[in-house]
Amino acid sequence: MVDMDKLVILVNSFGSALVSVGEELGVSVNLNKSQVTQGVKVQNVCAAALIGIVGGGIQGTAIVLLEKNSFDVVITAMTGGMITPNIDDAMSMSVIGELSNMVSGRAITQSAMVGVDVTPPQLIAGDNIRNVPNQAPGIRCFTLPFTMVCSGATLYLVLSFHIGS
Amino acid sequence: MVDMDKLVILVNSFGSALVSVGEELGVSVNLNKSQVTQGVKVQNVCAAALIGIVGGGIQGTAIVLLEKNSFDVVITAMTGGMITPNIDDAMSMSVIGELSNMVSGRAITQSAMVGVDVTPPQLIAGDNIRNVPNQAPGIRCFTLPFTMVCSGATLYLVLSFHIGS
Repeated sequence: MVDMDKLVILVNSFGSALVSVGEELGVSVNLNKSQVTQGVKVQNVCAAALIGIVGGGIQGTAIVLLEKNSFDVVITAMTGGMITPNIDDAMSMSVIGELSNMVSGRAITQSAMVGVDVTPPQLIAGDNIRNVPNQAPGIRCFTLPFTMVCSGATLYLVLSFHIGS
Repeated sequence: MVDMDKLVILVNSFGSALVSVGEELGVSVNLNKSQVTQGVKVQNVCAAALIGIVGGGIQGTAIVLLEKNSFDVVITAMTGGMITPNIDDAMSMSVIGELSNMVSGRAITQSAMVGVDVTPPQLIAGDNIRNVPNQAPGIRCFTLPFTMVCSGATLYLVLSFHIGS
Protein backbone atom coordinates (compact mmCIF):
# COMPACT_ATOMS: atom_id res chain seq x y z
CA MET A 1 0.00 0.00 0.00
CA VAL A 2 1.22 3.49 -0.88
CA ASP A 3 0.05 6.66 0.78
CA MET A 4 -0.86 9.65 -1.38
CA ASP A 5 2.45 11.42 -0.75
CA LYS A 6 4.46 8.45 -1.97
CA LEU A 7 2.12 8.12 -4.94
CA VAL A 8 2.75 11.70 -6.04
CA ILE A 9 6.50 11.18 -5.70
CA LEU A 10 6.34 7.96 -7.73
CA VAL A 11 4.25 9.46 -10.53
CA ASN A 12 6.55 12.47 -10.79
CA SER A 13 9.65 10.26 -10.71
CA PHE A 14 8.34 8.07 -13.51
CA GLY A 15 7.51 11.13 -15.60
CA SER A 16 10.96 12.64 -15.25
CA ALA A 17 12.69 9.24 -15.59
CA LEU A 18 11.14 8.69 -19.03
CA VAL A 19 12.22 12.16 -20.15
CA SER A 20 15.80 11.75 -18.91
CA VAL A 21 16.23 8.16 -20.14
CA GLY A 22 14.80 9.22 -23.52
CA GLU A 23 17.24 12.11 -23.70
CA GLU A 24 20.21 9.79 -23.11
CA LEU A 25 18.99 7.32 -25.72
CA GLY A 26 18.54 10.01 -28.34
CA VAL A 27 14.74 10.07 -28.16
CA SER A 28 13.71 13.47 -26.83
CA VAL A 29 10.19 13.47 -25.42
CA ASN A 30 8.11 16.10 -23.67
CA LEU A 31 5.56 15.25 -21.00
CA ASN A 32 2.19 16.82 -21.87
CA LYS A 33 1.52 17.92 -18.33
CA SER A 34 -1.91 19.35 -19.10
CA GLN A 35 -3.04 15.95 -20.39
CA VAL A 36 -1.95 13.81 -17.46
CA THR A 37 -5.15 12.09 -16.33
CA GLN A 38 -6.36 9.67 -13.72
CA GLY A 39 -7.50 6.44 -15.27
CA VAL A 40 -6.28 5.05 -18.57
CA LYS A 41 -6.54 7.04 -21.77
CA VAL A 42 -4.51 5.69 -24.69
CA GLN A 43 -5.10 5.48 -28.44
CA ASN A 44 -3.77 3.55 -31.43
CA VAL A 45 -1.34 1.52 -29.35
CA CYS A 46 0.41 -1.38 -31.10
CA ALA A 47 3.02 -2.33 -28.50
CA ALA A 48 3.28 -2.29 -24.74
CA ALA A 49 5.81 -3.28 -22.09
CA LEU A 50 4.63 -3.93 -18.53
CA ILE A 51 6.73 -4.05 -15.38
CA GLY A 52 5.43 -5.12 -11.98
CA ILE A 53 6.67 -3.12 -9.00
CA VAL A 54 6.48 -4.86 -5.65
CA GLY A 55 8.07 -4.58 -2.22
CA GLY A 56 8.72 -1.90 0.36
CA GLY A 57 4.99 -1.51 0.82
CA ILE A 58 4.36 -0.89 -2.87
CA GLN A 59 2.28 -2.92 -5.29
CA GLY A 60 1.92 -1.56 -8.77
CA THR A 61 2.59 -1.72 -12.46
CA ALA A 62 4.28 0.61 -14.91
CA ILE A 63 3.41 0.28 -18.59
CA VAL A 64 5.01 1.94 -21.60
CA LEU A 65 2.61 2.04 -24.56
CA LEU A 66 3.56 3.08 -28.08
CA GLU A 67 1.86 4.07 -31.29
CA LYS A 68 3.31 2.59 -34.48
CA ASN A 69 5.25 5.76 -35.21
CA SER A 70 6.70 6.15 -31.72
CA PHE A 71 7.57 2.43 -31.73
CA ASP A 72 9.55 2.89 -34.96
CA VAL A 73 11.35 5.96 -33.62
CA VAL A 74 12.31 4.29 -30.33
CA ILE A 75 13.62 1.09 -31.94
CA THR A 76 15.63 2.98 -34.53
CA ALA A 77 17.11 5.39 -31.98
CA MET A 78 17.91 2.79 -29.32
CA THR A 79 19.57 0.36 -31.75
CA GLY A 80 21.26 2.97 -33.94
CA GLY A 81 19.17 1.71 -36.85
CA MET A 82 20.56 -1.82 -36.51
CA ILE A 83 17.15 -3.41 -35.91
CA THR A 84 14.23 -2.90 -38.27
CA PRO A 85 11.18 -2.01 -36.19
CA ASN A 86 8.60 -4.83 -36.29
CA ILE A 87 6.09 -5.51 -33.54
CA ASP A 88 6.07 -9.23 -34.33
CA ASP A 89 9.81 -9.54 -33.96
CA ALA A 90 11.02 -10.48 -30.51
CA MET A 91 14.24 -8.48 -30.97
CA SER A 92 12.33 -5.26 -31.61
CA MET A 93 10.00 -5.91 -28.73
CA SER A 94 12.82 -6.61 -26.31
CA VAL A 95 14.12 -3.09 -27.00
CA ILE A 96 10.82 -1.74 -25.66
CA GLY A 97 11.21 -4.00 -22.65
CA GLU A 98 14.66 -2.56 -22.03
CA LEU A 99 13.26 0.98 -22.23
CA SER A 100 10.61 0.19 -19.62
CA ASN A 101 13.25 -1.47 -17.45
CA MET A 102 15.50 1.57 -17.56
CA VAL A 103 12.64 3.96 -16.83
CA SER A 104 11.37 1.88 -13.89
CA GLY A 105 14.83 1.42 -12.43
CA ARG A 106 15.57 5.12 -12.58
CA ALA A 107 12.18 6.17 -11.23
CA ILE A 108 12.47 3.85 -8.24
CA THR A 109 15.99 5.04 -7.51
CA GLN A 110 15.01 8.70 -7.85
CA SER A 111 12.01 8.35 -5.60
CA ALA A 112 14.27 6.80 -2.93
CA MET A 113 11.97 3.83 -2.32
CA VAL A 114 13.66 1.06 -0.35
CA GLY A 115 13.22 -2.68 -0.85
CA VAL A 116 11.34 -2.31 -4.12
CA ASP A 117 11.72 -5.07 -6.69
CA VAL A 118 10.59 -5.18 -10.31
CA THR A 119 9.44 -8.06 -12.51
CA PRO A 120 10.99 -8.68 -15.93
CA PRO A 121 9.11 -6.73 -18.61
CA GLN A 122 6.17 -8.42 -20.27
CA LEU A 123 5.84 -7.51 -23.91
CA ILE A 124 2.50 -7.23 -25.65
CA ALA A 125 1.96 -6.67 -29.35
CA GLY A 126 -1.45 -6.25 -30.93
CA ASP A 127 -3.82 -4.01 -32.81
CA ASN A 128 -5.47 -1.17 -30.99
CA ILE A 129 -4.34 -2.23 -27.52
CA ARG A 130 -6.12 -0.43 -24.74
CA ASN A 131 -5.23 -0.86 -21.12
CA VAL A 132 -8.56 -1.08 -19.34
CA PRO A 133 -8.61 0.58 -15.90
CA ASN A 134 -8.76 -1.81 -13.00
CA GLN A 135 -11.98 -1.09 -11.09
CA ALA A 136 -10.90 -2.65 -7.81
CA PRO A 137 -11.17 -0.36 -4.80
CA GLY A 138 -7.91 1.14 -3.61
CA ILE A 139 -6.23 1.18 -7.01
CA ARG A 140 -5.17 4.47 -8.56
CA CYS A 141 -4.29 4.70 -12.21
CA PHE A 142 -2.56 7.52 -14.08
CA THR A 143 -1.87 8.10 -17.77
CA LEU A 144 1.11 10.28 -18.69
CA PRO A 145 1.21 11.14 -22.40
CA PHE A 146 4.53 12.16 -23.97
CA THR A 147 5.17 13.74 -27.35
CA MET A 148 8.26 12.87 -29.36
CA VAL A 149 10.14 16.00 -30.33
CA CYS A 150 11.30 14.57 -33.67
CA SER A 151 8.01 13.26 -35.04
CA GLY A 152 5.18 14.49 -32.83
CA ALA A 153 4.19 10.86 -32.21
CA THR A 154 2.76 9.86 -28.86
CA LEU A 155 4.06 7.48 -26.25
CA TYR A 156 2.21 6.75 -23.00
CA LEU A 157 3.21 5.79 -19.52
CA VAL A 158 0.41 4.21 -17.50
CA LEU A 159 1.00 3.78 -13.77
CA SER A 160 -1.25 1.81 -11.48
CA PHE A 161 -0.77 1.50 -7.72
CA HIS A 162 -2.57 0.04 -4.75
CA ILE A 163 -3.08 2.87 -2.32
CA GLY A 164 -3.63 2.89 1.41
CA SER A 165 -4.06 5.66 3.94
CA MET B 1 15.93 -16.12 -9.48
CA VAL B 2 14.26 -19.50 -9.55
CA ASP B 3 16.05 -22.80 -9.96
CA MET B 4 14.67 -25.35 -12.41
CA ASP B 5 13.05 -27.45 -9.67
CA LYS B 6 11.07 -24.47 -8.37
CA LEU B 7 10.16 -23.54 -11.91
CA VAL B 8 8.65 -26.96 -12.61
CA ILE B 9 6.69 -26.79 -9.35
CA LEU B 10 5.41 -23.30 -10.20
CA VAL B 11 4.35 -24.19 -13.74
CA ASN B 12 2.53 -27.31 -12.51
CA SER B 13 0.88 -25.39 -9.67
CA PHE B 14 -0.39 -22.72 -12.04
CA GLY B 15 -1.76 -25.35 -14.39
CA SER B 16 -3.68 -27.17 -11.68
CA ALA B 17 -4.75 -23.91 -10.00
CA LEU B 18 -6.50 -22.72 -13.16
CA VAL B 19 -8.28 -26.06 -13.51
CA SER B 20 -9.44 -26.12 -9.88
CA VAL B 21 -10.41 -22.43 -9.72
CA GLY B 22 -12.32 -22.86 -13.00
CA GLU B 23 -14.14 -25.88 -11.61
CA GLU B 24 -15.31 -23.92 -8.57
CA LEU B 25 -16.45 -20.99 -10.70
CA GLY B 26 -18.46 -23.20 -13.02
CA VAL B 27 -16.01 -23.00 -15.92
CA SER B 28 -14.58 -26.47 -16.45
CA VAL B 29 -11.34 -26.43 -18.41
CA ASN B 30 -8.88 -29.10 -19.43
CA LEU B 31 -5.17 -28.47 -19.74
CA ASN B 32 -3.93 -29.62 -23.17
CA LYS B 33 -0.79 -31.16 -21.76
CA SER B 34 0.56 -32.20 -25.15
CA GLN B 35 0.47 -28.58 -26.32
CA VAL B 36 2.30 -27.01 -23.40
CA THR B 37 5.24 -25.22 -25.00
CA GLN B 38 8.22 -23.13 -24.07
CA GLY B 39 7.90 -19.63 -25.42
CA VAL B 40 4.66 -17.86 -26.19
CA LYS B 41 2.11 -19.32 -28.58
CA VAL B 42 -1.32 -17.71 -28.46
CA GLN B 43 -3.92 -16.91 -31.12
CA ASN B 44 -6.97 -14.66 -31.53
CA VAL B 45 -6.64 -13.18 -28.08
CA CYS B 46 -8.88 -10.18 -27.29
CA ALA B 47 -8.32 -9.82 -23.55
CA ALA B 48 -5.48 -10.44 -21.12
CA ALA B 49 -4.86 -10.05 -17.40
CA LEU B 50 -1.28 -9.85 -16.13
CA ILE B 51 -0.03 -10.36 -12.60
CA GLY B 52 3.52 -9.71 -11.45
CA ILE B 53 5.00 -12.22 -9.01
CA VAL B 54 7.90 -11.00 -6.91
CA GLY B 55 9.63 -11.90 -3.68
CA GLY B 56 11.10 -14.98 -2.02
CA GLY B 57 13.68 -15.14 -4.78
CA ILE B 58 11.09 -15.16 -7.56
CA GLN B 59 10.58 -12.63 -10.33
CA GLY B 60 7.95 -13.42 -12.87
CA THR B 61 4.63 -12.77 -14.51
CA ALA B 62 1.47 -14.83 -14.96
CA ILE B 63 -0.88 -13.89 -17.77
CA VAL B 64 -4.35 -15.21 -18.53
CA LEU B 65 -5.26 -14.68 -22.20
CA LEU B 66 -8.71 -15.25 -23.67
CA GLU B 67 -10.31 -15.62 -27.08
CA LYS B 68 -13.61 -13.79 -27.57
CA ASN B 69 -15.58 -16.97 -26.95
CA SER B 70 -13.71 -18.00 -23.80
CA PHE B 71 -13.98 -14.38 -22.56
CA ASP B 72 -17.77 -14.52 -22.95
CA VAL B 73 -18.02 -17.89 -21.20
CA VAL B 74 -15.87 -16.80 -18.25
CA ILE B 75 -17.72 -13.51 -17.69
CA THR B 76 -21.12 -15.15 -17.90
CA ALA B 77 -20.15 -18.01 -15.58
CA MET B 78 -18.33 -15.91 -12.99
CA THR B 79 -21.09 -13.30 -12.74
CA GLY B 80 -24.04 -15.65 -13.11
CA GLY B 81 -25.02 -13.81 -16.27
CA MET B 82 -25.32 -10.48 -14.43
CA ILE B 83 -22.66 -8.75 -16.54
CA THR B 84 -22.82 -8.68 -20.33
CA PRO B 85 -19.37 -9.61 -21.67
CA ASN B 86 -17.70 -6.62 -23.33
CA ILE B 87 -13.95 -6.18 -23.59
CA ASP B 88 -14.30 -2.38 -23.51
CA ASP B 89 -16.24 -2.42 -20.28
CA ALA B 90 -14.15 -2.12 -17.13
CA MET B 91 -16.61 -4.27 -15.15
CA SER B 92 -16.22 -7.19 -17.55
CA MET B 93 -12.47 -6.80 -17.59
CA SER B 94 -12.21 -6.68 -13.81
CA VAL B 95 -13.79 -10.16 -13.74
CA ILE B 96 -10.82 -11.42 -15.77
CA GLY B 97 -8.51 -9.67 -13.34
CA GLU B 98 -10.22 -11.45 -10.46
CA LEU B 99 -9.78 -14.80 -12.21
CA SER B 100 -6.05 -14.21 -12.66
CA ASN B 101 -5.80 -13.10 -9.04
CA MET B 102 -7.46 -16.27 -7.76
CA VAL B 103 -5.33 -18.51 -9.96
CA SER B 104 -2.08 -16.79 -8.93
CA GLY B 105 -2.99 -16.83 -5.26
CA ARG B 106 -3.81 -20.51 -5.33
CA ALA B 107 -0.76 -21.48 -7.38
CA ILE B 108 1.59 -19.65 -5.02
CA THR B 109 -0.05 -21.21 -1.97
CA GLN B 110 0.01 -24.68 -3.50
CA SER B 111 3.63 -24.45 -4.50
CA ALA B 112 4.51 -23.47 -0.91
CA MET B 113 6.57 -20.45 -1.94
CA VAL B 114 7.30 -18.16 0.99
CA GLY B 115 7.46 -14.36 0.92
CA VAL B 116 5.99 -14.11 -2.57
CA ASP B 117 3.91 -11.03 -3.35
CA VAL B 118 1.74 -10.30 -6.37
CA THR B 119 0.88 -7.05 -8.15
CA PRO B 120 -2.72 -6.06 -8.84
CA PRO B 121 -3.83 -7.43 -12.22
CA GLN B 122 -3.25 -5.27 -15.27
CA LEU B 123 -6.01 -5.61 -17.82
CA ILE B 124 -5.39 -5.37 -21.53
CA ALA B 125 -8.05 -5.34 -24.23
CA GLY B 126 -7.25 -5.25 -27.93
CA ASP B 127 -7.49 -6.99 -31.25
CA ASN B 128 -5.27 -9.95 -31.92
CA ILE B 129 -3.12 -9.51 -28.81
CA ARG B 130 0.03 -11.59 -28.84
CA ASN B 131 2.39 -11.76 -25.94
CA VAL B 132 5.83 -11.56 -27.47
CA PRO B 133 8.48 -13.68 -25.71
CA ASN B 134 11.03 -11.74 -23.76
CA GLN B 135 14.43 -12.45 -25.31
CA ALA B 136 16.52 -11.48 -22.29
CA PRO B 137 18.92 -14.19 -21.12
CA GLY B 138 17.80 -16.09 -18.04
CA ILE B 139 14.09 -15.76 -18.71
CA ARG B 140 11.96 -18.84 -19.28
CA CYS B 141 8.51 -18.60 -20.77
CA PHE B 142 5.79 -21.25 -20.93
CA THR B 143 2.41 -21.32 -22.66
CA LEU B 144 -0.28 -23.56 -21.17
CA PRO B 145 -3.35 -23.87 -23.41
CA PHE B 146 -6.67 -24.91 -21.85
CA THR B 147 -9.87 -26.01 -23.59
CA MET B 148 -13.26 -25.09 -22.18
CA VAL B 149 -15.40 -28.18 -21.75
CA CYS B 150 -18.65 -26.35 -22.57
CA SER B 151 -17.63 -24.60 -25.78
CA GLY B 152 -14.27 -25.92 -26.93
CA ALA B 153 -12.92 -22.37 -26.79
CA THR B 154 -9.31 -21.78 -25.80
CA LEU B 155 -7.85 -19.92 -22.86
CA TYR B 156 -4.12 -19.52 -22.30
CA LEU B 157 -1.89 -19.16 -19.31
CA VAL B 158 1.53 -17.70 -20.10
CA LEU B 159 4.15 -17.86 -17.36
CA SER B 160 7.48 -16.10 -17.49
CA PHE B 161 10.18 -16.38 -14.84
CA HIS B 162 13.74 -15.25 -14.29
CA ILE B 163 15.79 -18.34 -13.70
CA GLY B 164 19.07 -18.88 -11.96
CA SER B 165 21.08 -21.97 -11.16
